[in-house]
Amino acid sequence: MKNTIIMVLLAGMFTSRMCLAQEDQPAIKEDFKPSTLNQPGQEYPQVNSQGYVRFRVEAPQAQSVRVSLGGRGGTPLTKAEDGFWVGTTARPEDEGFHYYHLTVDGGTFNDPGAMHFYGSTRWESGIEIPAHDQDFYALKDVPHGRVQQILFPSKSTNTSRRAFVYTPPGYDKDPSKRFPVLYLQHGWGEDETAWSNQGRANLIMDNLIAEGKIKPFLIVMTYGMTNEIRFGGLRNFDIGPFQTVLVDELIPYIDAHFRTLSDQPHRAMAGLSMGGMETKMITLKNLDTFSHIGLFSGGTISAGEITDMDTFKEKVKLVFVTCGSKERPDSLKPASDSLKEAGIESGYYVSPDTAHEFLTWRRSFYQFAPLLFKD
Amino acid sequence: MKNTIIMVLLAGMFTSRMCLAQEDQPAIKEDFKPSTLNQPGQEYPQVNSQGYVRFRVEAPQAQSVRVSLGGRGGTPLTKAEDGFWVGTTARPEDEGFHYYHLTVDGGTFNDPGAMHFYGSTRWESGIEIPAHDQDFYALKDVPHGRVQQILFPSKSTNTSRRAFVYTPPGYDKDPSKRFPVLYLQHGWGEDETAWSNQGRANLIMDNLIAEGKIKPFLIVMTYGMTNEIRFGGLRNFDIGPFQTVLVDELIPYIDAHFRTLSDQPHRAMAGLSMGGMETKMITLKNLDTFSHIGLFSGGTISAGEITDMDTFKEKVKLVFVTCGSKERPDSLKPASDSLKEAGIESGYYVSPDTAHEFLTWRRSFYQFAPLLFKD
Repeated sequence: MKNTIIMVLLAGMFTSRMCLAQEDQPAIKEDFKPSTLNQPGQEYPQVNSQGYVRFRVEAPQAQSVRVSLGGRGGTPLTKAEDGFWVGTTARPEDEGFHYYHLTVDGGTFNDPGAMHFYGSTRWESGIEIPAHDQDFYALKDVPHGRVQQILFPSKSTNTSRRAFVYTPPGYDKDPSKRFPVLYLQHGWGEDETAWSNQGRANLIMDNLIAEGKIKPFLIVMTYGMTNEIRFGGLRNFDIGPFQTVLVDELIPYIDAHFRTLSDQPHRAMAGLSMGGMETKMITLKNLDTFSHIGLFSGGTISAGEITDMDTFKEKVKLVFVTCGSKERPDSLKPASDSLKEAGIESGYYVSPDTAHEFLTWRRSFYQFAPLLFKD
Repeated sequence: MKNTIIMVLLAGMFTSRMCLAQEDQPAIKEDFKPSTLNQPGQEYPQVNSQGYVRFRVEAPQAQSVRVSLGGRGGTPLTKAEDGFWVGTTARPEDEGFHYYHLTVDGGTFNDPGAMHFYGSTRWESGIEIPAHDQDFYALKDVPHGRVQQILFPSKSTNTSRRAFVYTPPGYDKDPSKRFPVLYLQHGWGEDETAWSNQGRANLIMDNLIAEGKIKPFLIVMTYGMTNEIRFGGLRNFDIGPFQTVLVDELIPYIDAHFRTLSDQPHRAMAGLSMGGMETKMITLKNLDTFSHIGLFSGGTISAGEITDMDTFKEKVKLVFVTCGSKERPDSLKPASDSLKEAGIESGYYVSPDTAHEFLTWRRSFYQFAPLLFKD
């Protein structure tokens, strides 16, 4: 039964973007610029103002080079006379961040021009299509918080585990001030680096704080699995081991080593995709620990799923669910409405023109953060 | 004249390891294990107890796959029947960390099995040959400090620049305690991630502190160039722009945002390779700012180079120079002795059986750190 629920959730979570054949693509504008996620000094890949991506990869003796980006089947590159393989996606890409890789003569490699981001249980190439609303996650001349790498002891897994903690600007200024905490989880195949690198959660926070739109809080990001790194592992996914790491080991460590408000009203959990599934499973079992819940492309919570509504109503201050418009947005409103009708603070958000990708989750976080810890 | 000095320094810094042909290699032991720097779940590359490295790369239609590791010319791989290219280095590798990459049909790619480390102005594959003395940089069950990513404003370069700050365990416990600071620079082609990722400086500090061998201090690591990322750029290297970032922008920011002892006696600078060259150029011009100087595979300071010996003697509390035994170790002692004769605290260290690579610098840092801030 548990596995059935998980697989149904996963089916929704891993819905890939719509790949409608579009015959009438606009003419490609020759205003390509290097992607902002290129390695230093690298001219390719490039992106134009319409969202087309152009690749250029050196492999003079290769028989075939293909890029995973560009719709079903990806983008085949063509060998030019100079030994470089070149090609342009057949359609504009969605705005935001995309993972991709190359297939060179049947082997999977990364694009030497692009930086790497952990996704699909490997360090993949990444590219950024400038979004019309990119201002909210831009690096600006505002006070910046820090992303602190910590190593915390974990008896249950018999090692030191890594987490990243965002502390807001000025955290060190007033040693008497304490902050609420959001525990924020990555998706399947990603790790604790995702929300800072791909998600830019730290820059979104810096900007929200600079504009006075939120009261500062800490964000804690750690790896959401204990050993099941392969997809097959999810079939038998048991939330127990990670719940132990998070609730019994990490939270007490954070409360002991950072200036937190360490009570339930000041502790939230959210996650994207698999991290949303984990958030749902862990928060519903630990209502004395968490008060605010966010599921980004990671399912919903409906009133019908709550077994003890009185307790839920007393403990939970917010349930917020989101996804991209190219996922399954229709499920959000009914679930959210069912909670509202039961008297629970609830909201939902659909990211326009995005799929199961990071721009959906940057926007989801941007919508979610100002709703937290409003007391 | 300035450029001549730099090029002579560089000639010494970039001495590559000795590649003597050795006919009588020992028989290869079949006790290969996955490298500790592999991506999660990846079985290859593997390392055996003698330091041989075995590679296995999927590229079924490729014509040739070669690995840059394994002496001059690297290691050619052979296609097996399953479509995987396999091969073993012709000789044991030196202990410690090595950068490498693949050449697949004439193109440069990373090994999909290995994690990436920024070196040679690109994110390269990395492999770790377990060293007999690896205990000093191992991840142990001791209190761990943090590596804090900060973004500091830089007017001279008109952007927010990134730095990493190591804060020792307990930094947050006593808000009245202040700490000395070491500014620690990477080498050419690397960046501000190198000393934590490849160098494990944070773990070396954690271990030294846990053993009571040093008084805790902060380490600040930032990118040591402003725009000249290509090798050619070094020919016209001007220390001015980076000196401005470091001395006029980063140091004041650190002193304003961390609990530092912000006077000259409690501020050190060290660097590896090009970072050593930068350390020498910047500290000699800023004796009112720095009191302790470390050059790791980055040249030496001799008494004859000091123009105002009285001031140098008054201001400088330590000059420490190091390199690997496979570099040019003979230059260290005469330079160090010349300073000692002039009455200056000076020392040197030669890392056994290592070249211009990171085990040399991990060991150099391990030797250097306990000598700092002894007052």
